[in-house]
Amino acid sequence: MSLKDEALNYHEHPRPGKIEITSMKQCDTAYDLSLAYSPGVAEPVRAIQNDKDNAYRYTNKGNLVAVISNGTAVLGLGDTGALASKPVMEGKGILFKKFADIDVYDIEIDLSDPDQFIETVAAISPTFGGINLEDIKAPECFYIEDELKKRLNIPVFHDDQHGTAVIVAAGLQNALEIVNKKIDDIKVVFLGAGAAGLSCARLIRHLGVEEIHLVDRKGVLNKSRDDANIYNKEFLSDTSATTLEEIIEDADVFIGLSGANLLPKEYLLKMKRDPIVFALANPEPEITPDEARSVRDDVIMATGRSDYANQVNNLLGFPFLFRGALDARAPQITMNMMLAASEGLAKLTKEEAPQSVLDAYQVKELKFGPDYIIPKPFDPRLKEYVAENVRLAALKEFHGK
Amino acid sequence: MSLKDEALNYHEHPRPGKIEITSMKQCDTAYDLSLAYSPGVAEPVRAIQNDKDNAYRYTNKGNLVAVISNGTAVLGLGDTGALASKPVMEGKGILFKKFADIDVYDIEIDLSDPDQFIETVAAISPTFGGINLEDIKAPECFYIEDELKKRLNIPVFHDDQHGTAVIVAAGLQNALEIVNKKIDDIKVVFLGAGAAGLSCARLIRHLGVEEIHLVDRKGVLNKSRDDANIYNKEFLSDTSATTLEEIIEDADVFIGLSGANLLPKEYLLKMKRDPIVFALANPEPEITPDEARSVRDDVIMATGRSDYANQVNNLLGFPFLFRGALDARAPQITMNMMLAASEGLAKLTKEEAPQSVLDAYQVKELKFGPDYIIPKPFDPRLKEYVAENVRLAALKEFHGK
Repeated sequence: MSLKDEALNYHEHPRPGKIEITSMKQCDTAYDLSLAYSPGVAEPVRAIQNDKDNAYRYTNKGNLVAVISNGTAVLGLGDTGALASKPVMEGKGILFKKFADIDVYDIEIDLSDPDQFIETVAAISPTFGGINLEDIKAPECFYIEDELKKRLNIPVFHDDQHGTAVIVAAGLQNALEIVNKKIDDIKVVFLGAGAAGLSCARLIRHLGVEEIHLVDRKGVLNKSRDDANIYNKEFLSDTSATTLEEIIEDADVFIGLSGANLLPKEYLLKMKRDPIVFALANPEPEITPDEARSVRDDVIMATGRSDYANQVNNLLGFPFLFRGALDARAPQITMNMMLAASEGLAKLTKEEAPQSVLDAYQVKELKFGPDYIIPKPFDPRLKEYVAENVRLAALKEFHGK
Repeated sequence: MSLKDEALNYHEHPRPGKIEITSMKQCDTAYDLSLAYSPGVAEPVRAIQNDKDNAYRYTNKGNLVAVISNGTAVLGLGDTGALASKPVMEGKGILFKKFADIDVYDIEIDLSDPDQFIETVAAISPTFGGINLEDIKAPECFYIEDELKKRLNIPVFHDDQHGTAVIVAAGLQNALEIVNKKIDDIKVVFLGAGAAGLSCARLIRHLGVEEIHLVDRKGVLNKSRDDANIYNKEFLSDTSATTLEEIIEDADVFIGLSGANLLPKEYLLKMKRDPIVFALANPEPEITPDEARSVRDDVIMATGRSDYANQVNNLLGFPFLFRGALDARAPQITMNMMLAASEGLAKLTKEEAPQSVLDAYQVKELKFGPDYIIPKPFDPRLKEYVAENVRLAALKEFHGK
């Protein structure tokens, strides 16, 4: 069977879809019903009326995240409409559950107008302990996330923006350690200045990177560009270079969040010693590790693919960011919490991998080095290293602990 | 432990809440992930883009109902706010799952304005195969349900209105058979002209009842009333009686959807032979069976309570109405489908009860008669008798089968 048929079969049988609900409480007798529903249920209702915080004590709110999309930027497929995005959102729900034991309701919202979308999410927000925005197109996604963060007192997180950023930041720190470069000395070039690119640039700037250049379809985002928007204007750089070919000269790091094969291998030759290349376009990277190594053997590479070393997989981030945020009952997922997640990922990579992880990936060893700068998604220690680090950062930031 | 403590304990431990989600598909390996999520998930997305109906094939939509409230009329507690209604909505979710294997996302919407509420429900509706509205105050609930029915092509059902009606209609038909009265000969008096009362009146009128009088806080809804609204004006009756005491004279049936102890036992003496009394106020009925029998021994009674015979429990209706509607993929729950549910309930009561039902209720027999005019909620035959009847009615109405 082809992957296409396998995937359709997987979604259709034995029952359509991927998520179902179950009762986490016994509900077999009339007495059970009298607790779960009328008349007993009036008690938690009254308790929550008296104190809203009791919703975290008597309902699933505290472990429930909404994965919400309007279907305007689904995978690489573009605007599919809300309904067609449902398989992706249900899939995300499965991942949240499997990796962080978080319950998810997928919600597909049939609205492309950002303000109406915001009103809708705000209106249903009492249901949830957190909101994961997904596959919403830029630049609306920036405005939507910003406004919802202002309005709601539960974490709101647009994974397409920040999920990748957290993992890139971890991989970058580890790669720099390997090649012995200081973070405030490096020159970083981004190809792609969309949702993920901007968040990534912001996060590594917080880590200490001083020289960042963004390149979009029209070339380098430099100060002579008159088409910058409020989201990318903070990254307009003071350079006369206008093309990728020019700006990549003497760069230490290339981060691609653009499209297939957009980094010609010759450009690699212009980069400094031990270049670090994150070629994250999916499913085809900006340059493959094989091509890169055909021109330079000192390159450290990461891609979005599981069949190469160093996969930047959002799965390493969002489940644990939310786990930590929910456990600390943080009202937001902040820059500090994202940095804590990166730190946890970076640290975990340097620990000795247990046999279970080696078995899961059918490898003899996973040793910190150029081919292992990022942990593996099926590593059971992620919860301990990443979620716990996020929780502690949140406790410090919001509860002074 | 008191019921209060038991109920709070039940909701809090071992984990807060009652609903959780699970993956219905295997998701243990990287290969499973490649089907459930990227890249395989792109296939069902494309399939749904090409044909919206494929959402029923590849996602949980077709078995997923939203239980939605804004918390404006929760149980008997009034306007508790959206958040405090969550334990009730989660409870309803458990009931849907247990009794009809339907998955539910509870959604609490923080909006009391009917139009904004309607917009919100419509916006999130692609997620779901049906909408169960719950605990929304009258008269807004009528408008909300009407508008959503017009706008959406999935079933929208306000259980507080129609759930009770379907069961009362079944019990009424059975009671009339027992006392040998014809449905078009009887006089019915309602005390309570709210959401449930109006729907109930409408449904039994469809069954053939010709003389119906509604009494609200201000007295009989007769043609001299100048405060009727668009929802109850169809029931303004041609009588000069203004009080319950006057209008109950010679009534065959009393249906109370009002409050505790509002039917003085002396009034029962004014009713015709073999009076049928549905005293459905919760938790205290308009009159208890004991009080009623203290003045008349020919009365047939039903209440909302499980500790008396003939409990009118919505659980007998909504799970099976939705099961039948979803199985037929009906775009609405119609009057015909509600009548089909009533018919199924009435018929089931007359069948011999299997041992499992007798055991569940610790009784020696359940025999059709004055003390058994309505089936029991834990009767496993409800799915066969009620849901299947609804499904067949829907197929006939919408698919010409």
